[in-house]
Amino acid sequence: MERPRHQGMAKNTYMRWRLPLVCLLWEVAMIVLFGVFVRFSPEADAHWEEEKKEMNLTSDIENDFYFRYPSFQDVHVMIFVGFGFLMMFLKRYGFSAVGFNFLLAAFGIQWALLMQGWFHSFKSGKILIGVENLINADFCVGSVCIAFGAILGKTSPIQLLVMTLFQVTLFSVNEYILLNLLHVKDAGGSMTIHTFGAYFGLTVTRILYRPNLEQSKDKQGSVYHSDLFAMIGTLYLWMYWPSFNSAISEHGDAQHRAAINTYCSLAACVLSTMAFSSMLQKKGKLDMVHIQNATLAGGVAVGTSAEMMLTPYGSLIVGFISGIVSTVGYVYLTPFLESRLHIQDTCGIHNLHAMPGLIGGIVGAITAAAATEDVYGKEGFIKAFDFTGAYQTRTPSVQGGFQAAGIVVSLLMAFAGGGLVGAILKLPVWGDAASENCFEDDIYWEVPEDEESDVYHMHNPDKPVSP
Amino acid sequence: MERPRHQGMAKNTYMRWRLPLVCLLWEVAMIVLFGVFVRFSPEADAHWEEEKKEMNLTSDIENDFYFRYPSFQDVHVMIFVGFGFLMMFLKRYGFSAVGFNFLLAAFGIQWALLMQGWFHSFKSGKILIGVENLINADFCVGSVCIAFGAILGKTSPIQLLVMTLFQVTLFSVNEYILLNLLHVKDAGGSMTIHTFGAYFGLTVTRILYRPNLEQSKDKQGSVYHSDLFAMIGTLYLWMYWPSFNSAISEHGDAQHRAAINTYCSLAACVLSTMAFSSMLQKKGKLDMVHIQNATLAGGVAVGTSAEMMLTPYGSLIVGFISGIVSTVGYVYLTPFLESRLHIQDTCGIHNLHAMPGLIGGIVGAITAAAATEDVYGKEGFIKAFDFTGAYQTRTPSVQGGFQAAGIVVSLLMAFAGGGLVGAILKLPVWGDAASENCFEDDIYWEVPEDEESDVYHMHNPDKPVSP
Amino acid sequence: MERPRHQGMAKNTYMRWRLPLVCLLWEVAMIVLFGVFVRFSPEADAHWEEEKKEMNLTSDIENDFYFRYPSFQDVHVMIFVGFGFLMMFLKRYGFSAVGFNFLLAAFGIQWALLMQGWFHSFKSGKILIGVENLINADFCVGSVCIAFGAILGKTSPIQLLVMTLFQVTLFSVNEYILLNLLHVKDAGGSMTIHTFGAYFGLTVTRILYRPNLEQSKDKQGSVYHSDLFAMIGTLYLWMYWPSFNSAISEHGDAQHRAAINTYCSLAACVLSTMAFSSMLQKKGKLDMVHIQNATLAGGVAVGTSAEMMLTPYGSLIVGFISGIVSTVGYVYLTPFLESRLHIQDTCGIHNLHAMPGLIGGIVGAITAAAATEDVYGKEGFIKAFDFTGAYQTRTPSVQGGFQAAGIVVSLLMAFAGGGLVGAILKLPVWGDAASENCFEDDIYWEVPEDEESDVYHMHNPDKPVSP
Repeated sequence: MERPRHQGMAKNTYMRWRLPLVCLLWEVAMIVLFGVFVRFSPEADAHWEEEKKEMNLTSDIENDFYFRYPSFQDVHVMIFVGFGFLMMFLKRYGFSAVGFNFLLAAFGIQWALLMQGWFHSFKSGKILIGVENLINADFCVGSVCIAFGAILGKTSPIQLLVMTLFQVTLFSVNEYILLNLLHVKDAGGSMTIHTFGAYFGLTVTRILYRPNLEQSKDKQGSVYHSDLFAMIGTLYLWMYWPSFNSAISEHGDAQHRAAINTYCSLAACVLSTMAFSSMLQKKGKLDMVHIQNATLAGGVAVGTSAEMMLTPYGSLIVGFISGIVSTVGYVYLTPFLESRLHIQDTCGIHNLHAMPGLIGGIVGAITAAAATEDVYGKEGFIKAFDFTGAYQTRTPSVQGGFQAAGIVVSLLMAFAGGGLVGAILKLPVWGDAASENCFEDDIYWEVPEDEESDVYHMHNPDKPVSP
Repeated sequence: MERPRHQGMAKNTYMRWRLPLVCLLWEVAMIVLFGVFVRFSPEADAHWEEEKKEMNLTSDIENDFYFRYPSFQDVHVMIFVGFGFLMMFLKRYGFSAVGFNFLLAAFGIQWALLMQGWFHSFKSGKILIGVENLINADFCVGSVCIAFGAILGKTSPIQLLVMTLFQVTLFSVNEYILLNLLHVKDAGGSMTIHTFGAYFGLTVTRILYRPNLEQSKDKQGSVYHSDLFAMIGTLYLWMYWPSFNSAISEHGDAQHRAAINTYCSLAACVLSTMAFSSMLQKKGKLDMVHIQNATLAGGVAVGTSAEMMLTPYGSLIVGFISGIVSTVGYVYLTPFLESRLHIQDTCGIHNLHAMPGLIGGIVGAITAAAATEDVYGKEGFIKAFDFTGAYQTRTPSVQGGFQAAGIVVSLLMAFAGGGLVGAILKLPVWGDAASENCFEDDIYWEVPEDEESDVYHMHNPDKPVSP
Repeated sequence: MERPRHQGMAKNTYMRWRLPLVCLLWEVAMIVLFGVFVRFSPEADAHWEEEKKEMNLTSDIENDFYFRYPSFQDVHVMIFVGFGFLMMFLKRYGFSAVGFNFLLAAFGIQWALLMQGWFHSFKSGKILIGVENLINADFCVGSVCIAFGAILGKTSPIQLLVMTLFQVTLFSVNEYILLNLLHVKDAGGSMTIHTFGAYFGLTVTRILYRPNLEQSKDKQGSVYHSDLFAMIGTLYLWMYWPSFNSAISEHGDAQHRAAINTYCSLAACVLSTMAFSSMLQKKGKLDMVHIQNATLAGGVAVGTSAEMMLTPYGSLIVGFISGIVSTVGYVYLTPFLESRLHIQDTCGIHNLHAMPGLIGGIVGAITAAAATEDVYGKEGFIKAFDFTGAYQTRTPSVQGGFQAAGIVVSLLMAFAGGGLVGAILKLPVWGDAASENCFEDDIYWEVPEDEESDVYHMHNPDKPVSP
């Protein structure tokens, strides 16, 4: 056992110059690009008083800030605490889970403000940002956090930063194709965030396949307390998902409706997850992995349709089904993907984001195709799908077709982009750890020493706690 | 010691078919009932544009969503993280505390949307739901989470689901009697949520009395880390309580006032709790049980009166007193209730919810009875107590009498309902554990194995850590 | 080793009568003073309907509550969970970190409502409070939480309450001088909260210097789980900081802009912190202390200027620099301050609050001095700096000078006040622990016994876990 460990240690995971260099270089690039391009939107600029008169607004409360800021903060919590803590289930990888998620998200939101800004908020040579841009940047980074879930424990922080750079770029292109070229609705991002992010991450982890990963099998599990920390992540994602799916919907009824639909879907999802978690286990006991993850599938699966007239019972049905699909995925599909397709998916994002994301895209397409003026009202119908200007004559069934096309485009972008980025990350220069050192904080982190090594000995059945 | 353990193990806690069956059956029932009854309220429906014109609103910001959504999210956090983590103080029951709370709340909010909908939001054959319904559903489930605190560690998940079904039903009936028939004000639910929920739970645990519970005494305590997890629950309940008490108050001054009163009451409560926690302990040390629980009594005790003109100093007084009552309760009453009345109250809900709830009801009655047009203003007086229509001629002192009647009704409903439900839960078909296996996650959960059993051995002074 | 311990135990840390007395006395004082002085502001009073007509408001949504309540709740979370959990990194001081922070903050907000009320909300003999007062009270207490960070582990709860009383008083005086006499802008409190709070705390800890503190060196570190708990504090501070810096800015664009600037600054700060944390460590590994603290410096450093037209790239630069300064401070300055200046700064508030606070004050002065009507617009310029009434003729460069004066005043107040309070706290009547018992919960708390003592033995390399 000693030999391979020492061989593994030979892999160069020394970060001292590489990580600082990448961080500083990229941050300087951000500062320069922000300096050239980014300014405040009229609602955040000191000229707002004049803007207000122009827009004929009588009160400061009509500033977009007050429509969206509470949702923004909820989304912000989901990205940093939600994802960060959800990935803390591994017994010796808590620092990395929350710390690397922090790092990549903090970098990603800056790059996303630029990329999405060029596509959507570019006016006379400047990107004008307001609270909606902050939400969209968080959304974009959400897709990177999802992909991080697949490769959790197996990559260096530099690899994560490189992946973030590319994935944010590709996300923005894909989003532009969907929202602007195909004129697709996807407020909660079933397609742009979840389907794209998950299949992107799965492709990357496939390419980074580690045949000897079972060498670190003993560190891939959870301990009692790490599971409780992970539940913090789960619950914040679950509770704030209504804010996620409604954050960038139209003011008024659309935001209101999106929150209600998501609330219903998530509630149903908890019950079907619990049912199948118990049913699929011989001893009938509940499995924390399912509770931590599959309960969230309901939020993913109404991501596209939540702002539409899905209705509360429609949401219950979608949540119910996605909880089942996700739990079944954890029990049967994940082992299959690993053994047969060599897809090592640490957090099971295929079950939580990929499949529910596809369901979400399909439900969105169907809900759009089924829309009628009767259900939405004349004005509501036009407003809900933005059937104005060039899209004035688009019918619901055509819209449904474009929605479906959006799924396909997202999948293609994910596979192609994931393939490309996976290949780049496979280069032997990024400082990733040897397979027997995966899922271990102390490769990249100062870990408190004496006590923990004791605890670790205690946790290691091979080394008796002897005097 | 071996014998009884094995006898205990004979009790059938196998959940494999029973739990899934109950979950799936009930979720399907929800889907059918939602399909028949539940639709969007006008403010969440795509017809909102037309509604806006009809209601003569000029801006989307006047949608009820923007008045209440931030408070809703805070309440949501209180139910799922607040209650879930507060109950995590037991050393080996963290999965169950947070997981079962998650399960029962997710089911309960669906059933509450229906029950409360039939009573309060039923229009031409449909229940029309908006953000206020979501808050009320969370409130209703809050009363179940309270009752769960009394029986924590001693019941199976199926029993909890059965209890939720009945308690939500009875809650809604009681709420209807109070709010609609007695025309009582109770925005923060001192009576409907806390008094009812706590005495309901106490009655249930009395009926489920386990004479041999001391067999699992070693598991009833906390460990260092479980106490820290519980503080997450405490703090989120404490911080967001102003949102709880103001969430469904009238727009404008009432919401504003309710938040301020609650803020003041809770601040005072912390100081009296700390004082009495130290004073009642021989060594003068602070007790985490008090800090985790009694600091919250101030929020409970202004539940009814927070939206009234209680004034900030009135709130301080109420908070101050309720902190004392609650702490004294933990020290003297809980042991008495257990030894003499056979009420085994795991979390001490009698001290945190029952007594402060009663105080809240009484303070509410007095505050209402003392109201004058001088203090409230002519319009404010009518608006605050909704003295319109059939209640146009009601005087403050009459209102005070009705408020007091509301306490009595809530108590009666709690005792009767708790008795009924306790009897049902006593049936030997629900899979609850033997007394020596109470307060133990691994009856119903897959618990991480090797490491934890080691930790557990270490924690168990009887089993030396020997090679 | 036994001897000094017993000598240490001789120090009287018995709290049974002293702590309750102080708590009860002060709470009674609060009740009396609130009774005499505190009433609801017009927007929280039942006369709001009349007020609305007078102010010519057409909708309840224009109540200040809806502009500020979501930010208030975020700030509230920062004070109680943010600071409370951030200080939980010590292995055996978690109860005290979160519990004492809870105690002092709950007392402090009451006293701050009074002190700040007399200075800013006093009308015809009454203090009229609304949601903005709650935010300001939380802000004021924030400066006490900062100072607590310096003396963490070395003081009794009574000392903390005494310090809170004085610090809140001095904070309010300093704030009055800055905001009212100097007419300085400081919405996020770089000067009033951070610079003042940090240098106050550092002065106190200097005066309370313990030459034998290395006796409790083994307890000054963290363990794996305590670092994860601390990350909860870090993340909530980081995520909600945009709310902190925008909470009391003018309605509309100023709140909007402050949130965006803070978001940008914090994002940049994470990258420079990670870079320098890795770079300054021989093995190139990341240090949790830096990630937990220095990542927040960006929020501190834009506290004054966030509501100004700092622009997003300006914010990136400020965040970038402050992350570097803070991290370098942890590595080089903290040891120097301790060994040479005898400043024992448990949490390193000099790096997180003092230096970034100074940067924030300076950046604010520069940004103000550089303001032009061109950048702000005619109306925006006057509104942003409140150049009305007596200040109608003040120019930006003069404003910059006054801003700089604000820094100096805050420093002087901090040193003088800290000196005074330090001297008071040095009196031998407050029940602080001996140096070898510092950083230890069980001086003031009931700590779960059997298990924990086991764990503690395990953690103590001197005491083997023997049968």
